[in-house]
Amino acid sequence: MTSLSELPIRDDLRGKAPYGAPQAPVRYQLNVNENTHPVPEEVAQHVVEAVARAVLGVNRYPDREFTELREHLAAYLGHGLAPENIWAANGSNEVLQHVLQAFGGPGRSLLGFPPTYSMHSIIASGTGTTWIAGQRDHDFELTPETAAAQVAEHRPDVVFLCAPNNPTGTPLGVDVVEAVYDATPGIVLVDEAYAEFMPKDQPSALSLLPGRERLLVSRTMSKAFAFAGARVGYLAADPAAIDALRLVRLPYHLSALTQAAAVAALQHAPTMLAMVDDIAEQRDRLVAELPRLGFRPYPSSANFVFFGGVDEPQATFEALFAKDILIRDVGIPNTLRVTAGTEQETTYFLEQLAALGPGGAHAAASVGSQA
Amino acid sequence: MTSLSELPIRDDLRGKAPYGAPQAPVRYQLNVNENTHPVPEEVAQHVVEAVARAVLGVNRYPDREFTELREHLAAYLGHGLAPENIWAANGSNEVLQHVLQAFGGPGRSLLGFPPTYSMHSIIASGTGTTWIAGQRDHDFELTPETAAAQVAEHRPDVVFLCAPNNPTGTPLGVDVVEAVYDATPGIVLVDEAYAEFMPKDQPSALSLLPGRERLLVSRTMSKAFAFAGARVGYLAADPAAIDALRLVRLPYHLSALTQAAAVAALQHAPTMLAMVDDIAEQRDRLVAELPRLGFRPYPSSANFVFFGGVDEPQATFEALFAKDILIRDVGIPNTLRVTAGTEQETTYFLEQLAALGPGGAHAAASVGSQA
Repeated sequence: MTSLSELPIRDDLRGKAPYGAPQAPVRYQLNVNENTHPVPEEVAQHVVEAVARAVLGVNRYPDREFTELREHLAAYLGHGLAPENIWAANGSNEVLQHVLQAFGGPGRSLLGFPPTYSMHSIIASGTGTTWIAGQRDHDFELTPETAAAQVAEHRPDVVFLCAPNNPTGTPLGVDVVEAVYDATPGIVLVDEAYAEFMPKDQPSALSLLPGRERLLVSRTMSKAFAFAGARVGYLAADPAAIDALRLVRLPYHLSALTQAAAVAALQHAPTMLAMVDDIAEQRDRLVAELPRLGFRPYPSSANFVFFGGVDEPQATFEALFAKDILIRDVGIPNTLRVTAGTEQETTYFLEQLAALGPGGAHAAASVGSQA
Repeated sequence: MTSLSELPIRDDLRGKAPYGAPQAPVRYQLNVNENTHPVPEEVAQHVVEAVARAVLGVNRYPDREFTELREHLAAYLGHGLAPENIWAANGSNEVLQHVLQAFGGPGRSLLGFPPTYSMHSIIASGTGTTWIAGQRDHDFELTPETAAAQVAEHRPDVVFLCAPNNPTGTPLGVDVVEAVYDATPGIVLVDEAYAEFMPKDQPSALSLLPGRERLLVSRTMSKAFAFAGARVGYLAADPAAIDALRLVRLPYHLSALTQAAAVAALQHAPTMLAMVDDIAEQRDRLVAELPRLGFRPYPSSANFVFFGGVDEPQATFEALFAKDILIRDVGIPNTLRVTAGTEQETTYFLEQLAALGPGGAHAAASVGSQA
């Protein structure tokens, strides 16, 4: 049998493993920040009807300009945005890849602030963009001064900000975006994948777009819209920036079924977003309850909670997995991340975590108990 | 208003225009080699049912390994292939992009033989791979000797062969593939987008896969399967090569709806492929009739015919467009390309072309007639 190392793959890929969180068929999947609420039946029915119409013409290539989808995304986002301000692709990962293909790439650099969405540095690598790992303040926060100083120091071609940040849930003020924008002649992208879960009084970076032609704000239908399986990420920016993305996209990158499904779901935005309040309530409940169990949750304006005080993350991960719960060990010492699901899921998770006691499970203890 | 040139886009993108054939709402769309037969109703119904099931779980990320789809693609291809030999993505464009991300990229080169599928060089550029334009023999043919000699001369990291070739329709023997493979230590990809339209006695490069771990054969559901709108391209190769593609794909690149729709369509392969014979018949009719109208068709084993003897391609393109027909001017002097559609479409096209007279339409003539 041939092994991968015998093939002439690129040197920078040698020894690497594919990215991806574990996919396991457990009952409580709280590891990848999905919306655990299925699409409401009335919406699902409309989506299927729309797809059924699209299938009739599926022998033809799709609308390369996904005109109707851009219209609906613009209307959904508001903020005076028009279809020519909108871009979309198969998940926000592909949107970010387009951004780096157009504005990053070999000889150019991307500044991000880890711990952050792990795909940011992976997409940098995949597009040949040099990744610069910036520093955060205490407790993973990021002030305008800290961020702008690092932009001035590193002079990156592109800056990615994550608001709220993943995996920490940390809110990011628009003042940080403004400061970073003013500190660079380059592109500033704000990844707002979890924006719909932010407190209502927290402004989106979308409000900063007028007059800032180098500012790009990405979103996704995966989270608030419960549409992770349909792969629809999108972005709002100046029409000139959208034109740049047209130069690097593969033609017909968005299927006719994807376009039809997304347009149908967007027509039910209020129904879809009704779930958001329930999820935010469970998130706040996690933040309130975890300290009582001896853990230390970080502030979160996303649909997940990152918490410290875990003595042995891997042991606790495994103990919960044995109870049919999948959460995420993102590799930061003494921490774990859990998605805010339904009330029942949150209750079960808290019960099982409580049963492990303060600090969570301990590998040594279980060995000791066998002695 | 900001213009694209004011943004910090990559220097190699400055002044470029997005790739894409004209999309116009004419009745006879014979320009992008689509299958002009809609998906049969029984298949469409099954596809919609499968998508309807997928929508119920669309709040979750899709199967990142598209396991069921790979099983069905392997079974469809035959040749003893197993799911671990299969890769798929959003159109064969994305499959080819994965191949170049894994085996090409900055500092590496791709040899192709233009005129060929225009996305080959565009994807090379998009992945930073140096494009080497090889030479064909007389009448766009390619012998084993010609191809192997250029491989030996240029020593590319990757070679793309197109069988049959697009836009010329030229068949490519497996002897060429063998000769190229033996002449290089690199990757050899055979783009068989139109393979189902080849004469039944013409072997596919799939037959060469055993024992050739650097050989990759790409296919698409866009053409024979009438599934262009669903965006499903795929590839067969040694499992080690598939592992390499896993390193560069964006996670969850294939949506749950795409996977469900493709699996359903593949279950109806015989029904879908029944259209292929009808289309091949119209192609052969075009090849037989065009000489009688004063044009010179090239041999084709695809679902389109490339023909010479056109005095002014642009004028003829426009004259046909005025008659509600869209065909393709690929920029090769005195030639045009037309998709083989239904019997009725072929008849109408031939009638309208005949009405233009030998050599097709002439811009000068119409100016003259106004004088």
